[in-house]
Amino acid sequence: MSGVLYVVGLGPADERWLTLEAQQALSEAQDIIGYEPYVARVPEREGQTRLASDNRVEIDRAREALERTMQGRIVAVVSGGDPGVFAMAAAVFEAVDDGPHEWRHLDIRVVPGVSAMQAAAARLGAPLGHDFCAISLSDNLKPWDVIEKRLEHAARGDFVIAFYNPASRARPTRIADAFAHLRKFLPGETFVGLAKSVGREKEEMILTSLDAVDPAQVDMSTLVVIGASGTRRIPREGARDWVYTSRKAV
Amino acid sequence: MSGVLYVVGLGPADERWLTLEAQQALSEAQDIIGYEPYVARVPEREGQTRLASDNRVEIDRAREALERTMQGRIVAVVSGGDPGVFAMAAAVFEAVDDGPHEWRHLDIRVVPGVSAMQAAAARLGAPLGHDFCAISLSDNLKPWDVIEKRLEHAARGDFVIAFYNPASRARPTRIADAFAHLRKFLPGETFVGLAKSVGREKEEMILTSLDAVDPAQVDMSTLVVIGASGTRRIPREGARDWVYTSRKAV
Repeated sequence: MSGVLYVVGLGPADERWLTLEAQQALSEAQDIIGYEPYVARVPEREGQTRLASDNRVEIDRAREALERTMQGRIVAVVSGGDPGVFAMAAAVFEAVDDGPHEWRHLDIRVVPGVSAMQAAAARLGAPLGHDFCAISLSDNLKPWDVIEKRLEHAARGDFVIAFYNPASRARPTRIADAFAHLRKFLPGETFVGLAKSVGREKEEMILTSLDAVDPAQVDMSTLVVIGASGTRRIPREGARDWVYTSRKAV
Repeated sequence: MSGVLYVVGLGPADERWLTLEAQQALSEAQDIIGYEPYVARVPEREGQTRLASDNRVEIDRAREALERTMQGRIVAVVSGGDPGVFAMAAAVFEAVDDGPHEWRHLDIRVVPGVSAMQAAAARLGAPLGHDFCAISLSDNLKPWDVIEKRLEHAARGDFVIAFYNPASRARPTRIADAFAHLRKFLPGETFVGLAKSVGREKEEMILTSLDAVDPAQVDMSTLVVIGASGTRRIPREGARDWVYTSRKAV
């Protein structure tokens, strides 16, 4: 008798963005598996096994979870944000696709969550209020020229753009390269928002432009939003501007 | 003394996808304002005013909410899904931008939620597991040629695509036109998923391709997902295929 594998989104920060479904899954799970900082966000419960691992081993983690589910365990693989957006859900199904046939009979339930771009957008105003795209700048698994092609089409298509994984120790110049590439297609005054550590104590929002943005301000906890032609700033006295993208085409 | 304006996402269906922050905002609010089916999803509470309106009057609804907040009320404008994604948050800030200067001093708090594409993706597997974009097919506020340009760049950039507002009584052929336009740039076997009434009793998932999709199956409750080159189907015996987008570039 096999178990259940929940692939759970914890939202971008503390429990305020946790859904009821996610709470329920975490309370049922016998095993909690994930990248260490995410596992640490799950309240400890007696008798629950916790397996925290490094960020780089997504496929190993997925396989571990699938094997435990085969043994009849109720397992929760946890991701920050939404597991379906640049997180563990794709790794789990990739492991199933490449794994033993019996894994295809497992009961796998993806539990969606609020993703980082949504929390960042909520803090800024409504920059994702119209057509947008989400691009991971990680080039661990895809070559840089694929990323450049996507940046070009996102810019030419006049999409608002959210960058995930904009910085890494292994390749610190990636974000500077991405801004430089976008400058070929977008005006220098294009809105750029850097949402750092959204929902956490050290949260910081930087509102700038494609010409003025400092790539050194982008770290691994930053969600980057690039505006489209319809993105507007509302100036306010004594407070940060609000930013929204008009639903009307320009 | 002015009040607080919460712009709250209820998630795509029942309360399972409601966040703790959204629950809190709804329990504080004195006035609940929104499109009728969304207002109906908020549990009734004594003393709370409920103002349900038609879908078409987003800006009027936003102004009503802002005026009540000016009068010191605690107001919640509710949207299905995430208010920041093709929903009320952009309308609220657009109303502020065009409205009296004092609205810029209001305490406006956007409360993000799980959006329809995330719930649909969770049901299908992990189709949004890599770079993707979200496009509204509504041409109420933007001309159709802008939509066609975005479709072209989304296809040429090899993004997974989620369509919002794919059908309307006013323009039933819109979705057929969109599929026809995408066929100019994408192979006929490109994955197409129709996620209908996700999370509701009559939920239905249709897995098909760009060549085979029947536009008549797309209604206002449908979230459409178009795959990218990295989107894979995992065949299963006696169960619906799982669909995911590989994190590796092709």
